[in-house]
Amino acid sequence: MKISIVGAGAMGSRFGYMLHEAGNEVILIDAWHEHVESINKKGLITNDNGLIKKVKIPAVLPERATEIPDLIILFTKSMGLEPMLESIKGILGKNTKVLCLLNGLGHNETIEKYVDNKNIFMGVTLWTASLKGPGHVELSGGGNLEIQNIDPEMKECAKQVCDIFNDARLNAIYSENVLLSIWRKACVNGAINSSCTILDCNIKQFGKLKQAPRIIRSIIKEFSDVANKFGVKLDVEEVARLVESTYDPSKAGEHYPSMHQDLIQNGRYTEIDYINGYISKKGKEFNIDTLYNDLITNLIHGKEELIIS
Amino acid sequence: MKISIVGAGAMGSRFGYMLHEAGNEVILIDAWHEHVESINKKGLITNDNGLIKKVKIPAVLPERATEIPDLIILFTKSMGLEPMLESIKGILGKNTKVLCLLNGLGHNETIEKYVDNKNIFMGVTLWTASLKGPGHVELSGGGNLEIQNIDPEMKECAKQVCDIFNDARLNAIYSENVLLSIWRKACVNGAINSSCTILDCNIKQFGKLKQAPRIIRSIIKEFSDVANKFGVKLDVEEVARLVESTYDPSKAGEHYPSMHQDLIQNGRYTEIDYINGYISKKGKEFNIDTLYNDLITNLIHGKEELIIS
Repeated sequence: MKISIVGAGAMGSRFGYMLHEAGNEVILIDAWHEHVESINKKGLITNDNGLIKKVKIPAVLPERATEIPDLIILFTKSMGLEPMLESIKGILGKNTKVLCLLNGLGHNETIEKYVDNKNIFMGVTLWTASLKGPGHVELSGGGNLEIQNIDPEMKECAKQVCDIFNDARLNAIYSENVLLSIWRKACVNGAINSSCTILDCNIKQFGKLKQAPRIIRSIIKEFSDVANKFGVKLDVEEVARLVESTYDPSKAGEHYPSMHQDLIQNGRYTEIDYINGYISKKGKEFNIDTLYNDLITNLIHGKEELIIS
Repeated sequence: MKISIVGAGAMGSRFGYMLHEAGNEVILIDAWHEHVESINKKGLITNDNGLIKKVKIPAVLPERATEIPDLIILFTKSMGLEPMLESIKGILGKNTKVLCLLNGLGHNETIEKYVDNKNIFMGVTLWTASLKGPGHVELSGGGNLEIQNIDPEMKECAKQVCDIFNDARLNAIYSENVLLSIWRKACVNGAINSSCTILDCNIKQFGKLKQAPRIIRSIIKEFSDVANKFGVKLDVEEVARLVESTYDPSKAGEHYPSMHQDLIQNGRYTEIDYINGYISKKGKEFNIDTLYNDLITNLIHGKEELIIS
């Protein structure tokens, strides 16, 4: 199958590599010049749990992509999605399926501007990967993904997409409620990532604060109120316990969340507008009070202005 | 007149010095051992706009204070007020007037536990001072203060207290609405101090943020809602413009607010519970939503835990 990975950072490279190894015709599409160049020159260097390979997969800049694939997997950063779709609209064929695996909320609304509903599939994944430099990806640990069609008619097609991933040992399952999983993941990120970034601490340190239980529940409550408008039932206590399970140092506890890495460690813009900022925006549209998420979004944007500009 | 300054830090030392120079019998009461010792050994060293003096004013630790004065001026840190009142309750005579000049909200409620209403006077001052070390205070610039009785019967007495300050060139005016001035000052602090502390920036940097207008107005709105319950009318736009006037670098703009100095620069606990935290606490009592101030209070307490413990 012809598969284009659109946004071939750490996760895109992992998926591209595994789908290529399973015999698919993969193309990596990314806007980072050095990355694309390095992959084309030296191959994609993969460190798969210690096994190092140089894999020949073609890479291309978005504006140079011309081949219409059967399947596109979207793996851009949230704020890169719309400009990327604009750049690659020439390869969005009438029958090209588009699977969104981005973190955060509201991406389906963006994709619908470019892609027919019947071709859109939403997913969420627990795989991880990290980029060690241009053309160099490190893979470790296991993972899985959930996939679901947006158009109710396209269930069988979603299952076929799952099969392709399973042939590549990516452990895909067809989900009857991928939206719930996407919201739950976004809500966990919305409770932890922004709090750790504002307070400049890691997940374990945050979890030890006397204030943490109240802070996360207030944030989750507003996620739940807005999710409800999309027919998604987020149970505040259940998500809070999910958040609290990550404090364990044997799990993610010692890590700084990605938003902290982006802003505090690397001086890059965050994905706040697709996490807490999405709640804040939709709260206004639906006339739901989302003061906590409003303030958190404003504080993170304030920190961005202070640190980046 | 016998005047005891209770809490003889920078501001207490300034007032003590000026009242002493005007011929009053002043005693400085403070819990900082080195400070008290230095004052008793070398005198209070004052640098009054360049004029350096060593002034002989007796200083004493709170638990050693025995003389009942005519007037007590309270100048402790907010969180030090109650333990200080507990320590000096022996010198709170039946006719001892007590004037509170602390920053922040809710101090009258604490004082009322120890002092008869008729003896309590509330005030607010724009004087400044800074402590350069034990027993060494630096004075510069001008200032004034507003004073008002709590018991309506005590108006004449409040005016007499004003006279004592005016004899010492402290520019006191009798106020018909000192509560409004106290709330307005606390609200300015509540909008700027905590924001600059959470974002780790100075007042000018904060003022430049695109998010600043929304952040301060959301905070001020909740102060205004709670103030209303105390019969204090805080106009949101008026206070917002007052806040915005401080961004000017020729005024306070280049300064880090005191809360930032306390927590970020010196690793000390902040007065948050008497500013945003007071709004949050009273919001709960009055069943008024104060989500913004709740979160800000929790974030500052979280930062305290991370930095101090």
